[in-house]
Amino acid sequence: MTTNTAGGDAVNVAPEPMEGHGAYDRNSRVQGSSLSSILPLLEQAAEVVPVDFAAPLVVADYGCAGGRNSLEPMRVAVRALRHRAGAGRPICVVHNDLPANDFAALFDLLANDPGSYLHGDPHVYPSAVGRSFFQSVVPPDSVTLGWTAWSVQWLSRMPMTIPDQVQVAFSRDAAARAAYARQAAQDWAAFLSARDGEMRAGGRLVVLAMASADIGGFGYRISVESIYGALQDLCANGFLDATEVERMAIPTYGRTRAEFLAPFEASGRFGNLILETIELFTDHDRIWAESGEGRDASLFATRWAKFSRASVFPTLASALREPADAVRRGAFFDRMEAAMTRRLAASPERSLIPLAKLIVSKVPA
Amino acid sequence: MTTNTAGGDAVNVAPEPMEGHGAYDRNSRVQGSSLSSILPLLEQAAEVVPVDFAAPLVVADYGCAGGRNSLEPMRVAVRALRHRAGAGRPICVVHNDLPANDFAALFDLLANDPGSYLHGDPHVYPSAVGRSFFQSVVPPDSVTLGWTAWSVQWLSRMPMTIPDQVQVAFSRDAAARAAYARQAAQDWAAFLSARDGEMRAGGRLVVLAMASADIGGFGYRISVESIYGALQDLCANGFLDATEVERMAIPTYGRTRAEFLAPFEASGRFGNLILETIELFTDHDRIWAESGEGRDASLFATRWAKFSRASVFPTLASALREPADAVRRGAFFDRMEAAMTRRLAASPERSLIPLAKLIVSKVPA
Repeated sequence: MTTNTAGGDAVNVAPEPMEGHGAYDRNSRVQGSSLSSILPLLEQAAEVVPVDFAAPLVVADYGCAGGRNSLEPMRVAVRALRHRAGAGRPICVVHNDLPANDFAALFDLLANDPGSYLHGDPHVYPSAVGRSFFQSVVPPDSVTLGWTAWSVQWLSRMPMTIPDQVQVAFSRDAAARAAYARQAAQDWAAFLSARDGEMRAGGRLVVLAMASADIGGFGYRISVESIYGALQDLCANGFLDATEVERMAIPTYGRTRAEFLAPFEASGRFGNLILETIELFTDHDRIWAESGEGRDASLFATRWAKFSRASVFPTLASALREPADAVRRGAFFDRMEAAMTRRLAASPERSLIPLAKLIVSKVPA
Repeated sequence: MTTNTAGGDAVNVAPEPMEGHGAYDRNSRVQGSSLSSILPLLEQAAEVVPVDFAAPLVVADYGCAGGRNSLEPMRVAVRALRHRAGAGRPICVVHNDLPANDFAALFDLLANDPGSYLHGDPHVYPSAVGRSFFQSVVPPDSVTLGWTAWSVQWLSRMPMTIPDQVQVAFSRDAAARAAYARQAAQDWAAFLSARDGEMRAGGRLVVLAMASADIGGFGYRISVESIYGALQDLCANGFLDATEVERMAIPTYGRTRAEFLAPFEASGRFGNLILETIELFTDHDRIWAESGEGRDASLFATRWAKFSRASVFPTLASALREPADAVRRGAFFDRMEAAMTRRLAASPERSLIPLAKLIVSKVPA
């Protein structure tokens, strides 16, 4: 598995509809496990942002997907801000993702899930904005606390096809590697620039994203290999043709520490943004652990394959000859999952899961 | 056809998913025709609301459905406010409907439809709130201009079954008529009360809603009759059982002029709201006209049946024994449409389409 989110946000990469309500949320437990290491940062940020002004407090959640992974962080943020700002202060929570995102699933969770941050606090106002986060999604100078998790590794577009891989991190093609690196640099700058515009002075943005580790690089070796292998299998048996496979790529990019730092390097600031902290760390491979370090090869394989199905197959399926052909699309999902499961079960392996966590703050202009 | 909207907003009446992306929008042309008579009111309201404050201007669209019928009014509102407030002033447009609404369709329209109010104005910020409009959906004192069209006739719940009808306006059951009238009164007060809380002083709310005419009452006689008749047909041929038909009702209510006025009667105010204008009028029956005053009976019947399928059948289908049974649900839609078409074609008739338009304003506390 090469990616770790539902689709994040992208300009030219269509987020593909998940397979039915909640499929992504049900299969996103891999990424749920690293929350505990970042929530303290979010809480810490909520403790220091200015709250002493008249307008409602605005918390923004960039790349919310179906909302399952937003409930806990937003609960933490709202609780911390509520404590500081007083019982009656309106707190707006703006959930952002691409236009095609399943916002109905999100609003359903907010209304009905026992873990919703709405419960017990009548002065919290959720909303959704279906718009790429590479542009502004809320008015200037409005966001006090921003949050984005497992989203900014998604690029705004595929800069080129990857001739020898489905994930550029494992490609040996220098042109593809360079094109993806350039796109990742542009996108990170565009993301930060949009946030610079919409954050209030003193506001904080907390980022959790896939990264490239100093040792081990992008990680997820076994999953990427089995996805790419499964595509070859489907091509070999005639289900896919070579031009379809060629077009298929996962437009995610694990930035290195240096790449995260780059926009801030020249002057210590990017616009009015300052990088407060950055830490690269390696997440626990939950599927590896739960499968008894791979001894239950079937469980190991099934879990990763299902996770890939929910998070990555939709993007791959957009490169099918006729992406609107629901029958062939369904068959693609099923065959990919089966082929991937076979391959994973044959050689279970622990995955490296490199992540970056950052706090960015906005200083007065 | 007894109703004239996609589902509006309701607390206990589940809005039923439409049949696929855009089905409602494609079949909502009946209500599109009365826009021209209300847009001048919206423009007029936009001309007088205060814009002289620091916060972004907020326009709220209550009951947006898939957004097709919101594009033009929001374009009118944004243009008028933009003219007064200056080029760089942020204008937020908040689209509200029930949590299960198809917000992805809305955001897709906003991004891609040539008629989107976003085009050419980079300082407009759309968002969506999936929450019943019988409660607050945005922070207190934030809305400068509110808009709701074809939505407030939807009740928050069915107060009781209607023993002899599918639409209470045609029932002879005194208890049902009284229960629906009570519910409509409560809901109108709840709707206004929530708006009172969230409007800014000086703000205006423009309302277009189904109404009950002084002469002719609720209207839509032929459509209601053919829906009720079609239900009887499906019961007679064994597709539906009697308890299902009994549970089926369309929880809309055409308020009389007196009922719209009621909350304001005691003191001239309701909370801090004042009724500026109210007018009951009769809309043009576009389907009647386009079918050559019924001479093309087949076109007449098809158009009304398709409109009912998109706007009313989902609500009826929620009363099926097993509403999650997609096959039987699909068959219900098809059989209802066929039966309704047969009945309508046999006796084309012009429909009375009574509507009310109102402007409500908020005075300083």
